[in-house]
Amino acid sequence: MARYGGIDLGGTKIQAVVVDEQHEVLGDSRVPTPTEGGPADVTLAMVGAVRDAAEQAGVAPGGLDAVGVGSPGAVDDEAGTVTSARNLPDWEGSYPLAEKLEAALAAPIALSNDVNVATMAEFELGAAKPFRSLLGVFWGTGVGGGIVFDGALWEGRGAAGEIGHMVVKSDGRRCPCGRIGCMEAYAGRGAMETRAREKVDDGEKTVLFKIMEERGRARLSSGIWSRALDRHDKLAKHLLDQAVEAIGVAVASSVNLLDVEAVIIGGGLGLRLGEPYVEKIREATMPHLFTDYRPPAILLASLGDLGGAIGATLLAADKAPAPA
Amino acid sequence: MARYGGIDLGGTKIQAVVVDEQHEVLGDSRVPTPTEGGPADVTLAMVGAVRDAAEQAGVAPGGLDAVGVGSPGAVDDEAGTVTSARNLPDWEGSYPLAEKLEAALAAPIALSNDVNVATMAEFELGAAKPFRSLLGVFWGTGVGGGIVFDGALWEGRGAAGEIGHMVVKSDGRRCPCGRIGCMEAYAGRGAMETRAREKVDDGEKTVLFKIMEERGRARLSSGIWSRALDRHDKLAKHLLDQAVEAIGVAVASSVNLLDVEAVIIGGGLGLRLGEPYVEKIREATMPHLFTDYRPPAILLASLGDLGGAIGATLLAADKAPAPA
Repeated sequence: MARYGGIDLGGTKIQAVVVDEQHEVLGDSRVPTPTEGGPADVTLAMVGAVRDAAEQAGVAPGGLDAVGVGSPGAVDDEAGTVTSARNLPDWEGSYPLAEKLEAALAAPIALSNDVNVATMAEFELGAAKPFRSLLGVFWGTGVGGGIVFDGALWEGRGAAGEIGHMVVKSDGRRCPCGRIGCMEAYAGRGAMETRAREKVDDGEKTVLFKIMEERGRARLSSGIWSRALDRHDKLAKHLLDQAVEAIGVAVASSVNLLDVEAVIIGGGLGLRLGEPYVEKIREATMPHLFTDYRPPAILLASLGDLGGAIGATLLAADKAPAPA
Repeated sequence: MARYGGIDLGGTKIQAVVVDEQHEVLGDSRVPTPTEGGPADVTLAMVGAVRDAAEQAGVAPGGLDAVGVGSPGAVDDEAGTVTSARNLPDWEGSYPLAEKLEAALAAPIALSNDVNVATMAEFELGAAKPFRSLLGVFWGTGVGGGIVFDGALWEGRGAAGEIGHMVVKSDGRRCPCGRIGCMEAYAGRGAMETRAREKVDDGEKTVLFKIMEERGRARLSSGIWSRALDRHDKLAKHLLDQAVEAIGVAVASSVNLLDVEAVIIGGGLGLRLGEPYVEKIREATMPHLFTDYRPPAILLASLGDLGGAIGATLLAADKAPAPA
């Protein structure tokens, strides 16, 4: 029986899993992403997380058939490198991640873009299993997108899926990317935090930053937004309503262009807010949807927080297929 | 040597061509689309246009190997029907167009959506020949879109390509489709005419409707818009600038999502305004383009007014392949 490792490398946490040939999780481990140091420190943390997950799964060191990684930044699987992973410490240049992991884990390594990995996970194993075409929307610090047509991932010239930078209002708000009116300018958790700080400076009241301090965090995490909603915070609700509106517009524009069967909502914020917010996104999509008589399925990602890491084990299985 | 017919069925005109196996045009004919009667009258006009084109090409009646049709409305090639072709007279229900044409022309008939036909024409024979992925933008009364991924047309669940109904401003202008902020609300020739009439009612000056009367037309055709520009008409220039802005935003959103290699600008208005306006569309796309360091090729459709009809001959050749 083959055993595969999968790593979801995020800006906040590193999630690792070890799975069997059916991609059932046998062990999992999560560690915070180092905020200091450089790529080597991050790589060591990844190795540690995989070792933990393997131990849980009863797999000896060096006993994995292959390990897959979903990474931010520009990923070149052939070269085995990750470049410009800007959420990771001092990771501007190109780093030979595959070579370093392979040496430490004694297993072949497969790399891919984190959003594409999460999309394929939902397509192969999650909420999108019944469908052949799919738009994945990953709602977190930014908003990433993944596209599957006729069963295959579409990457364009390498940069497809930037749903967060579709324009929802051509003369609208400035996006963290510098452009005007992008969906992410309204819906990205990063942009929402900036907006919340501006509103506080303007004298608006909110519990968002109070909860942040209580929990000893430096940023407004998805959990903080969720807790503020639980406390009926007006500013949090208002900014999330604007985010939902922007996501709905971009999803409708995408579906008008592509007429896919399904849209999957995932990402840290999407998963945390869950089905009630997926329902809000459905409602925000309808007024702009050309095929409103036959809308696509709009569904919450079903693999949860482990989705990215489980998706990475699909890469591993492609790299080292189990004997038939 | 095989001989194929192709028909582009438009709301204003019916264009027919007869081509050889290399899709070189041997004969062509254009007739006005009947504005009264019903589907049978339109079908008779199509038959007449094909007969004319065949005669020019030296092909006897009944001598065509197959005839393709690019049609508006909901096209079902398998059933041979066209339904809800709303720009055509009394063509709300389903009409067995293939059967009727086959009986009159004594040739197998292939039907497809007009925008998809024009897209494949540019992909196989026109400006997009060097590329494998493509967004076709057909700028006329409405704005239609066609998509090619990895050499194949993408139709989604049958309704893909509605680039005219991508949202460019979520709280913007009402579109003829009834929704808010669609690109077509700014860029469709129909919506632009409505806007021009409103501006005249508000007291603005323009030569648009004067040229329309001089030329005995009931609508602001592409030629009228072009002539108004030649006469330095401020309202015409202003509305076309807004249209270009909206097209640029929708093209940028599409490319951010799909990262295609090329965008082709065609349609009655696109072809009439030509390269100077394609350059304006390029400029309007750039500020919203995520991959602005590596923009797609944005090119004028190269098959001109015959593009749709020539594209329809590709359908015919698929239906009755020439012997090798």
